Amino acid sequence: MKQKVTPKTLSGFMELLPAEQLVFDKMKNVIEDTYRSFGFVGLDTPVLELSEVLLAKAGGDTEKQIYRFKKGDNDLCMRFDLTVPLARYVAEHQNELTFPFKRYQISKSYRGERPQKGRFREFYQADVDIIGSEKLAVVYDAEVPAIMYHVFKKLGLNGFCIKINNRKLMNGFYESLNLTEQSAEISRIIDKMDKIGVENVKACLKDMDLSDVLIEKIIAFTEINGKSEVVLEKISAFNIQNELFETGLNELKFVSQAMQNLGVSDKNFEIDLKITRGLDYYTGTVYETFVDGHQGWGSICSGGRYENLAGYYTDRKLPGVGMSIGLTRFFDLLRDQKMILPMAQTPADVLVLPMDEEALLYALKVASFLREHGFNVQTNASDGKFKNKMTYANKLQVPFVLILGENEVQSQTVTLKNMQTGEQSCLAYDELPNALKSFLEKNSYKTLKVIQNESK
Amino acid sequence: MKQKVTPKTLSGFMELLPAEQLVFDKMKNVIEDTYRSFGFVGLDTPVLELSEVLLAKAGGDTEKQIYRFKKGDNDLCMRFDLTVPLARYVAEHQNELTFPFKRYQISKSYRGERPQKGRFREFYQADVDIIGSEKLAVVYDAEVPAIMYHVFKKLGLNGFCIKINNRKLMNGFYESLNLTEQSAEISRIIDKMDKIGVENVKACLKDMDLSDVLIEKIIAFTEINGKSEVVLEKISAFNIQNELFETGLNELKFVSQAMQNLGVSDKNFEIDLKITRGLDYYTGTVYETFVDGHQGWGSICSGGRYENLAGYYTDRKLPGVGMSIGLTRFFDLLRDQKMILPMAQTPADVLVLPMDEEALLYALKVASFLREHGFNVQTNASDGKFKNKMTYANKLQVPFVLILGENEVQSQTVTLKNMQTGEQSCLAYDELPNALKSFLEKNSYKTLKVIQNESK
Repeated sequence: MKQKVTPKTLSGFMELLPAEQLVFDKMKNVIEDTYRSFGFVGLDTPVLELSEVLLAKAGGDTEKQIYRFKKGDNDLCMRFDLTVPLARYVAEHQNELTFPFKRYQISKSYRGERPQKGRFREFYQADVDIIGSEKLAVVYDAEVPAIMYHVFKKLGLNGFCIKINNRKLMNGFYESLNLTEQSAEISRIIDKMDKIGVENVKACLKDMDLSDVLIEKIIAFTEINGKSEVVLEKISAFNIQNELFETGLNELKFVSQAMQNLGVSDKNFEIDLKITRGLDYYTGTVYETFVDGHQGWGSICSGGRYENLAGYYTDRKLPGVGMSIGLTRFFDLLRDQKMILPMAQTPADVLVLPMDEEALLYALKVASFLREHGFNVQTNASDGKFKNKMTYANKLQVPFVLILGENEVQSQTVTLKNMQTGEQSCLAYDELPNALKSFLEKNSYKTLKVIQNESK
Repeated sequence: MKQKVTPKTLSGFMELLPAEQLVFDKMKNVIEDTYRSFGFVGLDTPVLELSEVLLAKAGGDTEKQIYRFKKGDNDLCMRFDLTVPLARYVAEHQNELTFPFKRYQISKSYRGERPQKGRFREFYQADVDIIGSEKLAVVYDAEVPAIMYHVFKKLGLNGFCIKINNRKLMNGFYESLNLTEQSAEISRIIDKMDKIGVENVKACLKDMDLSDVLIEKIIAFTEINGKSEVVLEKISAFNIQNELFETGLNELKFVSQAMQNLGVSDKNFEIDLKITRGLDYYTGTVYETFVDGHQGWGSICSGGRYENLAGYYTDRKLPGVGMSIGLTRFFDLLRDQKMILPMAQTPADVLVLPMDEEALLYALKVASFLREHGFNVQTNASDGKFKNKMTYANKLQVPFVLILGENEVQSQTVTLKNMQTGEQSCLAYDELPNALKSFLEKNSYKTLKVIQNESK
């Protein structure tokens, strides 16, 4: 026999054991169901794209990290994000799509980075984008963060804050100070406020030869943050006369109002004029999301409004707005902080344990009956002692066990054991669905929340 | 501005437009929910594996098709199936898993084949496997095809047949005829029966120097197929005295009985002694699945029982049983035959159409209220004429539209239009959930069947 090969995976690739995989899948399901509940269609573009197409825009560091190779005559890349494939898809199929086009994609992307804590070479992103043809109404700028709000609430995350700002407002503000040319650099400096502190920001601005008066004004303005009504008042107090500024302010007002109408609690949403997002790509509303007590994680869900999705592929103007959850990284952070609720090793609500061969055939019928009633049911048919069967049940951490022996087969009953309370009862088997129903409504794989918001 | 790059995908990669993507996703969801209802955990192994690990067993044609490349010091492969990664996973994590280990994986694999009709370079497989440590009860051989039966029924496919056979039965039969050495070659010839016809099979067997009496016996035996009771009687009539044969026959009997107890109708399941499966890998029960009237498709879902999953990675004996749906290919075949029910371009049950800016904020509230009640709701906020809004609704093929104008805002009502019947009614907005409920229970994205079994 050949020597054994050591079974192992590459570093930088997350692979989970069953209990954690179930949590991850549930998070993915909640995100997907919520995206769909807003009418988004899930795309599933290929992992491999032609290099000339995928790299039309990329460059620099991104390009170095890409998994790129030749096969036959083809020069191929594994995708490094979900935005470029979206741009390619919309441009390619523009005459077959209905605009506004609402798509989500929850898929893996690939970057051959040096492996380090919190960086993955294969990682899920969960993106939503709404793409218009030529124009796109501002209300969609409210819909996108509202979707994310509902996602996080359904996951059980309560302490989080979606922060929004508007690039037009900021650019109008700099324009009103005659700082249009310097605005990009100022933004980059302001973006570092949380990291380097206000004094260092001031020093950097001074290095740009800005006057103390200007610096104080910029700091005072960008430090504005909080509940939307208060913030909007503070901004008005600056009394700035500038058209772009006005447009941005009106958008910010409308988006705040619309988010409230979409059920977003003001406990989880703020305007913050420090939020800039690095990319030049964004032109209007921008978003970042922070978990309470974990500012150090940075934003777990970001995005914004852009003027044009697919300029490299088509002349048609395709404005859009979107946000993305970095799902693999988010999961890794939650896990590290023990913020994930412990789960069973199986999606089964009930484990059926027949005591002998006779009971086995009966067990299959009972399991099948429960599945017809919507339960997830696993049958364990291993022979062996009763104790071993219960050990199996304990290892899987399944909430209910059905014990089926000679007596149960003869009387067509079941012995139901609640594994959490230890309680045991004997039932006719058609009484089972009702007996299990109320417990499972609160606790089953399909409905249970997965995140607990206090770190242990 | 740089010249535009033509947006296109590689040939051999399936990419869908929204209406078809929704059908595909629904198929995937039905499969996943059914797998989970039997207590299986979904694995999600990396697409990229180390070549030395992934190719421990592979060779020949498979190896030529693999996407393999170097990045830094790593020699990498994209996976070409889901079985080798399963073997690697179970061997790697054997001390952390609970056996029997029930896993499913619905993921893409990659093969750089020459593109041709029905062959894909990126394709989904939907696998279930149950892995035991040292041994695994025969009842799981019944569970696996029962899962597939329920998957196909839930998808709306009614005319299909899962055919089962048992390798021990067949090998015992050949042993009883002193044909053990020739059995592999005979199996390969029998496997071609449907393609080349019985006369050619006889001729091939004659070329092996088998006597006419033996040939007649083999043909008579392997031509046995049909409902399990009838078949089991016919087999008994051969009166074969052989231990391996007896074991196989008992397994086949038990599996047939257990499948019935698991709710599998005998309309959709047969024993067929011609079924052999090419791979040496299988050692007991084997399965193939055919769609009525489409024998030419070959098997759409196959698998079997194997002695040892991971011999290349570990000395521990890991027997298992599994089946796999070739999902991308299956979808492509159904689509070609117009067997897929036409779908909307959106998962939304309801499209909310506000007539003006005032109504827009009200529309968001109504949409949010409906989502709380479990509906999928899309709001269209594009400005423009009423006619354009209705054109959008028609293009999306959404079942219901809510029209909200000045009147509706003032009276807090909605005008509900059923897009299939054209019927229109005015309701208080809290009456909506009940008004929509019964229709959507039968027709919504979550419950609608996607396959119609008669080709047009």
